[in-house]
Amino acid sequence: MAGISDSQVNETGRVEAFSDGVFAIAITLLILEVHVPKGLEGRGLTDALLTEWPSYAAFLISFFTIGIMWINHHRLFTLIGRVDTWLLVLNMLLLLGVTIVPFPTAFVADYLGHPGERLAAILYAANGLNIALSFWGLWVYTASSRRRPRLLKIPPESAEVKAINAQYRFGPLFYVAAVGIAFLNAGLCMAYCGALALFFALPPRRPRGAE
Amino acid sequence: MAGISDSQVNETGRVEAFSDGVFAIAITLLILEVHVPKGLEGRGLTDALLTEWPSYAAFLISFFTIGIMWINHHRLFTLIGRVDTWLLVLNMLLLLGVTIVPFPTAFVADYLGHPGERLAAILYAANGLNIALSFWGLWVYTASSRRRPRLLKIPPESAEVKAINAQYRFGPLFYVAAVGIAFLNAGLCMAYCGALALFFALPPRRPRGAE
Amino acid sequence: MAGISDSQVNETGRVEAFSDGVFAIAITLLILEVHVPKGLEGRGLTDALLTEWPSYAAFLISFFTIGIMWINHHRLFTLIGRVDTWLLVLNMLLLLGVTIVPFPTAFVADYLGHPGERLAAILYAANGLNIALSFWGLWVYTASSRRRPRLLKIPPESAEVKAINAQYRFGPLFYVAAVGIAFLNAGLCMAYCGALALFFALPPRRPRGAE
Amino acid sequence: MAGISDSQVNETGRVEAFSDGVFAIAITLLILEVHVPKGLEGRGLTDALLTEWPSYAAFLISFFTIGIMWINHHRLFTLIGRVDTWLLVLNMLLLLGVTIVPFPTAFVADYLGHPGERLAAILYAANGLNIALSFWGLWVYTASSRRRPRLLKIPPESAEVKAINAQYRFGPLFYVAAVGIAFLNAGLCMAYCGALALFFALPPRRPRGAE
Repeated sequence: MAGISDSQVNETGRVEAFSDGVFAIAITLLILEVHVPKGLEGRGLTDALLTEWPSYAAFLISFFTIGIMWINHHRLFTLIGRVDTWLLVLNMLLLLGVTIVPFPTAFVADYLGHPGERLAAILYAANGLNIALSFWGLWVYTASSRRRPRLLKIPPESAEVKAINAQYRFGPLFYVAAVGIAFLNAGLCMAYCGALALFFALPPRRPRGAE
Repeated sequence: MAGISDSQVNETGRVEAFSDGVFAIAITLLILEVHVPKGLEGRGLTDALLTEWPSYAAFLISFFTIGIMWINHHRLFTLIGRVDTWLLVLNMLLLLGVTIVPFPTAFVADYLGHPGERLAAILYAANGLNIALSFWGLWVYTASSRRRPRLLKIPPESAEVKAINAQYRFGPLFYVAAVGIAFLNAGLCMAYCGALALFFALPPRRPRGAE
Repeated sequence: MAGISDSQVNETGRVEAFSDGVFAIAITLLILEVHVPKGLEGRGLTDALLTEWPSYAAFLISFFTIGIMWINHHRLFTLIGRVDTWLLVLNMLLLLGVTIVPFPTAFVADYLGHPGERLAAILYAANGLNIALSFWGLWVYTASSRRRPRLLKIPPESAEVKAINAQYRFGPLFYVAAVGIAFLNAGLCMAYCGALALFFALPPRRPRGAE
Repeated sequence: MAGISDSQVNETGRVEAFSDGVFAIAITLLILEVHVPKGLEGRGLTDALLTEWPSYAAFLISFFTIGIMWINHHRLFTLIGRVDTWLLVLNMLLLLGVTIVPFPTAFVADYLGHPGERLAAILYAANGLNIALSFWGLWVYTASSRRRPRLLKIPPESAEVKAINAQYRFGPLFYVAAVGIAFLNAGLCMAYCGALALFFALPPRRPRGAE
């Protein structure tokens, strides 16, 4: 970026716009994997709908996972004043994980309740781990960058930075646990992934709840 | 969001951008469910096109429903000056309903005029109810929030707020009626849902038409 | 919109963002209708690719049609300072035509060179007419609106407004001709639609080329 | 654009927004070509997943290609202060190449490791060449435009312009080589395309690394 960045006041604007686009598309494409049963009627149609519950569950969990990741992305970028090439690359890795989500979601939708569900849940949790690591990497790089002017708008010693540090440090560990749970029980793993999404919806806790 | 929000003047910008993306994608994906008849010719092709009228009707009703929801979302956010975590979550629930629309639309397109059309229409109307409830929840939360600085840009006693209160209060009731109609007649339910979309295109009526 | 609009300086921002989203998605979805031939090799694969030329032609014509419509939408909105409910509705009608484009495009891709190509071309041209009428309606409404403050940023007597009047007045007529040509020859109609797209890429000609 | 442009301070905004949308959608649609194996279990399912490695490889290479093109587009537009009709048309040609990417990607995913892989890799590399030429054309036009006010924000003799000249001049040559490699070995061509993407992630090198 070399010098370009210095002359741009609102430089994070396009990164946010591109990221918003990717999040919005990934979250909206999820519904394409929920299929309408074909050529049935009456009881058969109702039954076909009901047996598709893993589709609906996987759709909902992925919807809230992506939605809440977006909220977190939004939170982080309210603190970021500048981007550099590495931050763009780390953000691209994060978006890679987000665009992948529809694949393990479709996998879980197809296999939950059937043999193969364990592999589906492992892939699902592994992509969650992938995203958690990207978030953590993006944040650590941004918060610890020594470049001048700094990438963060706020001082690195602020309570806000520490609160995010605390929350994000555990993200990868939580998803390592998700992968472990997937080996035991696919359904439990998906429920746990849904609960993790909700956990990350919480604003980072600061020493004294200043909210 | 804890303190982040206070330092951000244009904080609703990214929420609107993300929401715009979701609305725009959901409305554009609808056409993917309108299929080209394969391998026909002459009269057979024309007939195949004509018998697909439920696809076209469902496409148009959903297009205007999402489009007019977007207009309403746009109207609301011209009044909102700040977001907090709950508002983000409520907005995400609203977007959930919007991204689901292509599913019941495809369902109605496949089943209208066949056995199973009632179930299709019930699902369609139920998702409409879901969206109406989310809109109502988003608005009530925003308008009644006691936080300082307020989420609304305008005073809660203003005629504008009252006009929206009046229009949104009835939204869920109208869609409860839609679900009821779906039990009686699927086609009538869809016509009613189209009419509801047009109703919400009207600007909220204020005591004296100040427009 | 009732009074909301008066307090919003940059009010066209979200309309443009939503429209940009719809244009961008419609133009990008087109490629989904270009299919990879399955399970072939050598000569058979090359032949299968070559016989798909109507897919490529339809893709390219629709790409440039939507792309150049976007350029025109962009031009119009650089002149528009404010939106009202009717302008939003007219814009939604225009976007309806844009989101429909992938359907007649897929139709032409499937049927060009086969019986049924005439019907395909008629539908393609008819949607072009639909869009041209929407553009014309949007422009006439905006340019002739008597509301205060005006929707247009520039005076209605300016050379720029007259130049756009001249170009847009002919849009619907050109597409009526496209529908007529489709009855005679489907391939010619598609070539003509491609040429029309290029015509609208030209900036509106002003009395003295002030560019 | 004739005179419109002069009155618009932030005129590149919508071009960037539309382009961001196209990049974001193209990059997110790629996952739709990665298919979940159907109806398998145990060993058969794992094997089916593993034999799909060309899908994953093609997905990743295209993801980073589009992602890094977006970074470059972003870099260029931080230097561009104004757009004119030709720049819009050249940008549209660039976006054409970007929207096409999912097609050769699906082609490579289907044919890598099978007869026909060479044709797949040739198409893939040819579209890369297409994009590299568009980038080069866009840049040369922008940097050499004699119009007043200039399209570039920075003086054409600046080190930054020269660095981009140097990097972009080689882009088309590198992709000509990719097409040549595709004739020899499809897998090698794809690896080379992945490496090219990474090369373009590097910021343009300036005489003295001012970064």
